[in-house]
Amino acid sequence: MSVQPSPDHAAGAAVKAADRAHVFHSWSAQGLIDPLAIAGAEGSYFWDYDGNRYLDFSCQLVNTNIGHQHPKVVAAIQEQAAKLCTIAPGFAVDVRSEAARLVAERTPGDLDKIFFTNGGAEAVENAVRMARLHTGRAKVLSAYRSYHGATAAAINLTGDPRRWPSDTASAGVVHFWAPFHYRSPFHSDSEQQECERALRHLEDTIVFEGPQTIAAIILETIPGTAGIMVPPPGYLAGVREICDRYGIVFILDEVMAGFGRTGHWFAADHFGVTPDLLTFAKGVNSGYVPLGGVAISAEIAATFDQRPYPGGLTYSGHPLACASAVATINAMAEEGIVENAAAIGENVIGPALREIAERHPSVGEVRGLGVFWALDLVKDKETREPLVPYNAGGADNQPMADFAAACKRGGLWPFVNMNRTHVVPPCTVTEAEAKEGLAILDEALNAADAHTS
Amino acid sequence: MSVQPSPDHAAGAAVKAADRAHVFHSWSAQGLIDPLAIAGAEGSYFWDYDGNRYLDFSCQLVNTNIGHQHPKVVAAIQEQAAKLCTIAPGFAVDVRSEAARLVAERTPGDLDKIFFTNGGAEAVENAVRMARLHTGRAKVLSAYRSYHGATAAAINLTGDPRRWPSDTASAGVVHFWAPFHYRSPFHSDSEQQECERALRHLEDTIVFEGPQTIAAIILETIPGTAGIMVPPPGYLAGVREICDRYGIVFILDEVMAGFGRTGHWFAADHFGVTPDLLTFAKGVNSGYVPLGGVAISAEIAATFDQRPYPGGLTYSGHPLACASAVATINAMAEEGIVENAAAIGENVIGPALREIAERHPSVGEVRGLGVFWALDLVKDKETREPLVPYNAGGADNQPMADFAAACKRGGLWPFVNMNRTHVVPPCTVTEAEAKEGLAILDEALNAADAHTS
Repeated sequence: MSVQPSPDHAAGAAVKAADRAHVFHSWSAQGLIDPLAIAGAEGSYFWDYDGNRYLDFSCQLVNTNIGHQHPKVVAAIQEQAAKLCTIAPGFAVDVRSEAARLVAERTPGDLDKIFFTNGGAEAVENAVRMARLHTGRAKVLSAYRSYHGATAAAINLTGDPRRWPSDTASAGVVHFWAPFHYRSPFHSDSEQQECERALRHLEDTIVFEGPQTIAAIILETIPGTAGIMVPPPGYLAGVREICDRYGIVFILDEVMAGFGRTGHWFAADHFGVTPDLLTFAKGVNSGYVPLGGVAISAEIAATFDQRPYPGGLTYSGHPLACASAVATINAMAEEGIVENAAAIGENVIGPALREIAERHPSVGEVRGLGVFWALDLVKDKETREPLVPYNAGGADNQPMADFAAACKRGGLWPFVNMNRTHVVPPCTVTEAEAKEGLAILDEALNAADAHTS
Repeated sequence: MSVQPSPDHAAGAAVKAADRAHVFHSWSAQGLIDPLAIAGAEGSYFWDYDGNRYLDFSCQLVNTNIGHQHPKVVAAIQEQAAKLCTIAPGFAVDVRSEAARLVAERTPGDLDKIFFTNGGAEAVENAVRMARLHTGRAKVLSAYRSYHGATAAAINLTGDPRRWPSDTASAGVVHFWAPFHYRSPFHSDSEQQECERALRHLEDTIVFEGPQTIAAIILETIPGTAGIMVPPPGYLAGVREICDRYGIVFILDEVMAGFGRTGHWFAADHFGVTPDLLTFAKGVNSGYVPLGGVAISAEIAATFDQRPYPGGLTYSGHPLACASAVATINAMAEEGIVENAAAIGENVIGPALREIAERHPSVGEVRGLGVFWALDLVKDKETREPLVPYNAGGADNQPMADFAAACKRGGLWPFVNMNRTHVVPPCTVTEAEAKEGLAILDEALNAADAHTS
């Protein structure tokens, strides 16, 4: 078990220097970053080499749903490492079968066949391939304000600026607008109207693109990094109905929303909707070992019963990854971790954030459920002008940088994206930890308030 | 340490039944497969539940370069699991820095910045993105008879039938022919002529595609699954020169050929050639934990010094994966494993395969080095007609199926692709194990001989 050590500034400096010598970092200008050296982590906390401990309200990249270093998952990895680290995907292995069973048991409807990948992007890549081959159609519709991964098909589906530098206009993707009542693309004045207009917009887009050209619609059940916009009642059921009507495959991306994050095993459970394909990663094993996958309906699986499925990867169903998923899912079930996420969201985080929003001029909207919440920060509550412009950098982003720095000074590691902070602690977070984090957040929001008009 | 248990048929049947209930397999018609249930593995062997042990001449999917369950790597995974399983890519962590240092120390030239991914496909995806952004050009040239992975960009680069179902004609890829003297696309009558004509063909293709439209040329240093065609002397140096002349990024894909497979750390070392980007996976940690990456030249890294690199993944530089890479590379160095691969290839496998080729009418050519060898099987040594047609299935593939079955009956797990079997044991294989496997192979080739004309 990890224990926070005494400060060791020299060790931290050495780790950082070694990092800067050879590690090329994601999504970064390599010459402008100053990565914090991390010494250890436990439960809801991690710490650096300088004696600073951070309450992890980011779950890293919203993946450590079970917290850091859960002892049952650590033990399962150690046991599987001693037994069998790796074996090719073509074989049958006990932990791979058991991980597939445990996932299939929890996915909605008849999504009972599991194709394992190394992460969410590959899950999306394979879901899209399955949909295209199942339908014989090429186009995929995805939403603006979305993220689906950074490999070629996944990044083209993405609806945020991370797509732009890798955009291939010919990738067969059409973007549409999903409901977002607070910043409505449809000028609607109620959740119900937002839902109706969003469905009308989607169907109009399908009709004008040509239904017979569209293989799939992919949506994050609740969009994650793009802003945790919980869809209005009826929207996902409406999309399901449209897909059925036009023979379009419905893909729900639960890479971030799945495995307890929303207070259910899957976010789709909140809406009683069953997609044809469901992608997952992150929470399935909290990222202790890279793992993702696609849960496949009986109908789509049948497409590849006599005809080979033309996709794969060396580490599909990796034994070490699967063993950690088995331990994670079992621990989450035994310890009531999903129920804890629901209760903390309903009784602690939700009420506290709504109360915070009333007091802070910078908080325009609070939205979410479980341990999956967003604060939409604004310059002005009336106009709803975002606290920083879309995709702001440098000085334009100073208000959010000030807010993030205030969180860190207070001992809280925040998740920040554009004009939002997301409150995404582990599903294991205790009431006391949640309150500790919310108090730091409350204080840090003064830094955002200072930039309101 | 794993030990082969007594047969337990019931346990094996249960594992297989559980697999068929819920696991969706790579590259397969789900209703037509009968996956062997694996109980354990050690060194150069793995075994099922029925008392059958197999000498692993496939290294699974040519990834267990250090053999199965190397005790130092298993221990490193267990220790890192106890310490820190996962942390976001934005931080600095000791094992991530050390893994990057150990890789950078071994890559040729100034490829000293390492971007980690979960596997080879994502490494290729990111190398292509880097090349496109570095040059501001869109097209990538890749070879027929190649494999680069199954995500959208990687599968479009691939030059074998696995590409066809996922082909996006608009992906900005142009395929050309690389040298392959035994089945020359250029009607050449010597290795030297093959090299000259292949370079001329490549340059002609560049000139007619428009040099200023081409971001990169990607080649497997020695093509792997496509047939282990060791390039003739001067070819890779010639490609390097052409790339320099036209400002094209040269990417070498060492996912399969790297980390000892050829008897050097990288296959590029055989040819004294330094690419601008080098992709790796598999052997870097023998796949004990999913890991891949891109080694980046100083010039390309500098492109992303002040400008953000627009790519990433949740598990980039995953601590558990990096810890296993550190242990793998150190063990390979300490135990002379790369040198062993070179010596076994030169003194045992190479001579034995050449002798086998003389005696068997089905063996058209033997080619390779280190523990990376192909037998090109033919119907007729004179005409060189492949023993089975390109991309044969069903009854057309019976000769290869018979050969593979004979290997398995003899206790050898072969790597078979189209009309070839590859001899790709671990780099740790002993002389006795190599001879044991070669004797089984020799016997099994009688099954192939039976189909010659």
